[in-house]
Amino acid sequence: MKITQVETIRFKTITNTERDSDGHGHPGPERETTQTLLQIGTDEGVSGYWFGANAQAIDSLVKPAIIGEDPFYREKIWRDLNHRQRLNLGTLSDQVLMSVDLALWDLAGRALEQPVYKLLGGLRDKVPAYASTMCGDDLKGGLATPEDYANYARWCIERGYPAFKLHTWQPPYAGAPDPKRDIEACAAVREAVGPDVPCMLDPYHYYDREAALFLAKELEKLDYYWMEEPMDEHSMSSYIWLCEQTSLPICGPETCEGKMYVRAEWIKAGACDISRCGVGDVGGLTPLMKTVHLCESFGMRCEIHGGGPGNLHALCAMHNGEFYERGLLHPFINFDQPAPWLHEHGELMDDQGFVHVPQRPGLGMNINWDYIEKNKID
Amino acid sequence: MKITQVETIRFKTITNTERDSDGHGHPGPERETTQTLLQIGTDEGVSGYWFGANAQAIDSLVKPAIIGEDPFYREKIWRDLNHRQRLNLGTLSDQVLMSVDLALWDLAGRALEQPVYKLLGGLRDKVPAYASTMCGDDLKGGLATPEDYANYARWCIERGYPAFKLHTWQPPYAGAPDPKRDIEACAAVREAVGPDVPCMLDPYHYYDREAALFLAKELEKLDYYWMEEPMDEHSMSSYIWLCEQTSLPICGPETCEGKMYVRAEWIKAGACDISRCGVGDVGGLTPLMKTVHLCESFGMRCEIHGGGPGNLHALCAMHNGEFYERGLLHPFINFDQPAPWLHEHGELMDDQGFVHVPQRPGLGMNINWDYIEKNKID
Repeated sequence: MKITQVETIRFKTITNTERDSDGHGHPGPERETTQTLLQIGTDEGVSGYWFGANAQAIDSLVKPAIIGEDPFYREKIWRDLNHRQRLNLGTLSDQVLMSVDLALWDLAGRALEQPVYKLLGGLRDKVPAYASTMCGDDLKGGLATPEDYANYARWCIERGYPAFKLHTWQPPYAGAPDPKRDIEACAAVREAVGPDVPCMLDPYHYYDREAALFLAKELEKLDYYWMEEPMDEHSMSSYIWLCEQTSLPICGPETCEGKMYVRAEWIKAGACDISRCGVGDVGGLTPLMKTVHLCESFGMRCEIHGGGPGNLHALCAMHNGEFYERGLLHPFINFDQPAPWLHEHGELMDDQGFVHVPQRPGLGMNINWDYIEKNKID
Repeated sequence: MKITQVETIRFKTITNTERDSDGHGHPGPERETTQTLLQIGTDEGVSGYWFGANAQAIDSLVKPAIIGEDPFYREKIWRDLNHRQRLNLGTLSDQVLMSVDLALWDLAGRALEQPVYKLLGGLRDKVPAYASTMCGDDLKGGLATPEDYANYARWCIERGYPAFKLHTWQPPYAGAPDPKRDIEACAAVREAVGPDVPCMLDPYHYYDREAALFLAKELEKLDYYWMEEPMDEHSMSSYIWLCEQTSLPICGPETCEGKMYVRAEWIKAGACDISRCGVGDVGGLTPLMKTVHLCESFGMRCEIHGGGPGNLHALCAMHNGEFYERGLLHPFINFDQPAPWLHEHGELMDDQGFVHVPQRPGLGMNINWDYIEKNKID
């Protein structure tokens, strides 16, 4: 089988989120936006798909590299693209590598009529989710106050989520960042959900060491389950310093460049208690599984960053990640409604808080081709 | 798909190797022996196979654990068996886990009509091999003298092998172990093959630190490519001590218990320059790939221990292992002749020294069912 087609389909769709000046998503008025779908096709007719792809990078850098390759040679393709990143740092990002790798996994699953997690080697068909909020805002009844977080946490537990993670306030919101206010929100959530629900915090990412340690010590008292990225992850020494002084599990790195390599160094150096990685952070499912296996070899959890089918299939083929991150959630947004380009929600969660992996071939995305065709941008 | 059958077929065959009192193989008179074939069958008719299985452990410990399981749930099955090892250390060995895991990979490949390396994600379809000798002996014209090794190395290079590894003399052979004699053999081989052929040594495994360092320093002068296991691998500190004092790459651990976990500790501690692992050392292809990914995350090679289809498929889905270990070889044995229970050699090597991975579904073993049926032991 050979790759004969590498195409990015663009189509109009609607969204009800908007991004603040720092790039974080919040609820917003419904508006039109553009979505993309990467299609990798073959001479045998079968294709693989991934939503969200950089058309320019795909056309100029990926397509010439992978046309003619066997789509089952994922290691070769990933490695080739990885080596091309060095002189294309600004354009051939890990996100681009992810889109290609996931389309290839989807293709393999579709060709073999198997869900991807079974190709990886299955462990389970459902994973407990935690509710993962959007960052704090100033919307009345949204996530504007500690009480808002508490109310929303109560709602999420009622909905079935077994655990809850706060993303607290970040610039440009007035008063942010403020570690004391972060802790007020965390305390309100703990009070609301009771002592038995695992709670996590992912705060502002550029606190200094002292502020990060303050957060950690307060979260110890609140019996929090972990904290993510309170400081710039490029300073591994800061995380070693933090881990040495707190019993709160520190989970990371997440956004730091360096794929599985940087995670190996963090583990070796004692810069984290729990590692962290999603398909988008390291360039796909292929390197995500390498990171998961690295962590497993050190007896360490690797909590998966972000949702989506790539991360869900990974979680169903590993034991050292406890939760699926479902979100980002907000009181104003109905997350249980599928994206307009899908017939069916890809992250269906039952009343006990388990997200079920689709048993459909490949990544299991049930694509609404009529919608895409109707809204296609030529 | 469900596992409905777990059976060990026993059949008579012939061999021309025999084991010395320490367990090492040498050429011997042709004699009858018993071979086993593990078959894992399913309700959908497809089966997976692996040659060499402990019938008693399979029947008493494995079968009750895996009947009814989905054969694509390799992670679940491996983990379940792994946890059962603790109270069955003497019977449920890593070798038993390997046989089950490889039969499951074979089954997946047969069910999906794909060679296993493509399920893993292919990188290449052939791997350069090194000639790996049997241990030294006292057979005239065999591997009895340094000159014997030199002559045989010359023959191997002529045959196409790009690299050569000596297993030197071990007890019960007279005069063994002797580091000076090991070095005489290594020097004779270097002299015979010239300066450009990578040469490796795997000597007696219970030398003390000083003898191991002597070997390393001499092999530095002979420009050897790596050395394996000159000391008991349970003493990791001895390997740290050795690595700190030599520029010769030290490759290991190989036989040390502890699967990917012990390899993680060796890497972290600086006890090896190159890691080492085969499907038989860690309990299958599933944990082998975890080890490979661990090593890759640290930028480290993982040279694969031993031949066979499991290791060959792994090598075709990884870049951080340079060679396929072909052997064990001896001047008196024609290794290019397939085993009697196979229609075709599973480790075919071309004139350039590349071993080609079978493109047949699963592990690619071309089983001679007539032979097995004819020689079956009821």
